[in-house]
Amino acid sequence: MRPTVRPDARFLATTPHSLDDIETPALVLDVTRMERNIERLKRRLTSLGVAFRPHVKTAKSIDVAERLLGGRGGPITVSTLKEAEYFAGCGITDMTYAVGLAPAKIARVQALHVRGLNLSVLIDTPEQAHALVAAARSTGGTPGVLIEIDCDGHRGGVRPDDPQLPAIAAVLRDGGVELRGVLTHAGESYSCRGGAGLPQAAEAERAGAVRAAERLRALGHPASVVSVGSTPTVHFAQDLSGVTEVRAGVFVFFDLVMHGIGVCAIDDIALSVLATVIGHRAEKGWLLIDAGWMALSRDRGTARHPIDQGYGVVCDVEGQPLGDLIVSDASQEHGIVSVRPGSDSRLPDLPIGTRVRILPNHACATGAQHDSYQVVRSGSRDVVATWPRMRGW
Amino acid sequence: MRPTVRPDARFLATTPHSLDDIETPALVLDVTRMERNIERLKRRLTSLGVAFRPHVKTAKSIDVAERLLGGRGGPITVSTLKEAEYFAGCGITDMTYAVGLAPAKIARVQALHVRGLNLSVLIDTPEQAHALVAAARSTGGTPGVLIEIDCDGHRGGVRPDDPQLPAIAAVLRDGGVELRGVLTHAGESYSCRGGAGLPQAAEAERAGAVRAAERLRALGHPASVVSVGSTPTVHFAQDLSGVTEVRAGVFVFFDLVMHGIGVCAIDDIALSVLATVIGHRAEKGWLLIDAGWMALSRDRGTARHPIDQGYGVVCDVEGQPLGDLIVSDASQEHGIVSVRPGSDSRLPDLPIGTRVRILPNHACATGAQHDSYQVVRSGSRDVVATWPRMRGW
Repeated sequence: MRPTVRPDARFLATTPHSLDDIETPALVLDVTRMERNIERLKRRLTSLGVAFRPHVKTAKSIDVAERLLGGRGGPITVSTLKEAEYFAGCGITDMTYAVGLAPAKIARVQALHVRGLNLSVLIDTPEQAHALVAAARSTGGTPGVLIEIDCDGHRGGVRPDDPQLPAIAAVLRDGGVELRGVLTHAGESYSCRGGAGLPQAAEAERAGAVRAAERLRALGHPASVVSVGSTPTVHFAQDLSGVTEVRAGVFVFFDLVMHGIGVCAIDDIALSVLATVIGHRAEKGWLLIDAGWMALSRDRGTARHPIDQGYGVVCDVEGQPLGDLIVSDASQEHGIVSVRPGSDSRLPDLPIGTRVRILPNHACATGAQHDSYQVVRSGSRDVVATWPRMRGW
Repeated sequence: MRPTVRPDARFLATTPHSLDDIETPALVLDVTRMERNIERLKRRLTSLGVAFRPHVKTAKSIDVAERLLGGRGGPITVSTLKEAEYFAGCGITDMTYAVGLAPAKIARVQALHVRGLNLSVLIDTPEQAHALVAAARSTGGTPGVLIEIDCDGHRGGVRPDDPQLPAIAAVLRDGGVELRGVLTHAGESYSCRGGAGLPQAAEAERAGAVRAAERLRALGHPASVVSVGSTPTVHFAQDLSGVTEVRAGVFVFFDLVMHGIGVCAIDDIALSVLATVIGHRAEKGWLLIDAGWMALSRDRGTARHPIDQGYGVVCDVEGQPLGDLIVSDASQEHGIVSVRPGSDSRLPDLPIGTRVRILPNHACATGAQHDSYQVVRSGSRDVVATWPRMRGW
């Protein structure tokens, strides 16, 4: 799989199209906003004095990864082994596979290790450590290991004070498998609203990871890597002492969930779905568009936010929101557009054939419904490039 | 795009694999159940004396379409022009594109018409009729047209008594574009539960379409096609007098939403996602699996049903439900499995590496997250074929 843009070409106009004439629905990337989002985070990380390992599961694109990294070396975080294989094929050599390792996947991670990839895998049970040890004995090598730490009860991981933590480390040491350190993710930060609680969530994430690493070191285990991160916490962290690297993914595009959490403004959102008006139901206060959940995803991440954005905020073709217009319901290939309940805005007159852009609840989920990005600059309708996306496992 | 199974081979074991050794997550199709679902609906339609035009948006697979049709001629219903182009390339010659036509898509439907496809398109405004007339004048031909009828206020369409109905027909007649009839879809039937209200919804769907067709005929317009359908209504219709064809899609696989509506049993559900246990959080009553919303979709269609199935019902690797185990939460590549709230079942002991299968809320949405089906027979772990899926617009 090769990108459509040559590495040395910043933007190559391979597609002499405009948002006025490409097929709808289509995934549109405002690269001006994306570059601003990347710069903002990089400035923060520089001031916090910590390295960056962006999560590429949001974009699944070498073209976006190049702009995150300023090149093709790495480091990156991946969520599937197919991502690892795709990005390795694009020349990225340093990555962390940040989902708990299934024993049946060890052969695939060993194949990446043998190819020379500097890969770290994630575990949180002695069973996984034993499986890695057995594989290392039979074949002579495995990737390095990070132990997943639970800093907020969100999902997987061991608590920093759990007896499992040194038990896992001991299995790895006794079996000759390299322990590199610890990794945590403050997933509960997504339940914050309007920024409240995020500095505390960031400190809990930092403190949990650092405490786990110190505990391992005190027992004589190596723990050179202390990896933390989520888009909400990294934008609100006050201090990252003891942390060696930060991971974040969705910040590159942002979305309506991140807006509701308090991390970005509406005009930071770089991803949208281009759609066409295909029907009017004036008596119901509806417009119909040709983007349903297949194009927008089923993600309703703002459903329990103070502002429920439905299936997304409706903008004009250049990306400016149209009053309080949202996609209020969706079937497979139809979206129903109406004014947000409680608003005194009126349904605008958008004739059949009018093109609109929908800002998504969740960039990771909406992006996954598409095979490529139609790349534009802010305020322009010119498609300056088409970038492919990868998918699957 | 070509299927992996030769047309004359019922099942060709191209993949000497088992559900015990393929990569996870993966989409599994129990073809025994699928064949039973198809036979059940065909028996109903025979007894109702009406033709069938299955909707292929659920499966997006020529291999499934062949089993729906008993061959490759048609007729079918499609939801995107890319489906139309894919199935035309597979030899299907008779199809209805059942989403309101955007004027900018007319050139693509004309290209299919010129290739000899017997295609019908759907409109519900005079603007769309004028656009078709203009295109027919400039190029000498367009597909036939169905007017979308609103039978229950669900989405698009004109009411049977709306003045727009004869107005649209008049524009087509005056412009020399072929009107074929009417089409409706009782989308509100999805809000029924446990079968209640479905015979009435089916009758409202039939009556609305027939009334619209009779009104057109009384004004001298042709209306030979009276097309109705949804999986819930077709399974509960008592009489389809005046209807010429029925459309239905999701019945081919069924899902937990259809179970909640009262249309199928749990053991009719033919689609599932194979996943692997990757973690334990006994103190929280959780198992972690390597199927998150990327593999299961974000569809939470049972969230407001009397039984909320979370992100899906957890079964053993042969497809038998494991007590009251559901996927209670999901992130991109992680699922959290727990016992349904209120159940007195206990979390079973499923070691790291155990394989499970997840029955989906919504087969159309879950299928769309995958590029192929791993085909098995009921109660067997042998993968007897791999069938590709298409996607996009």
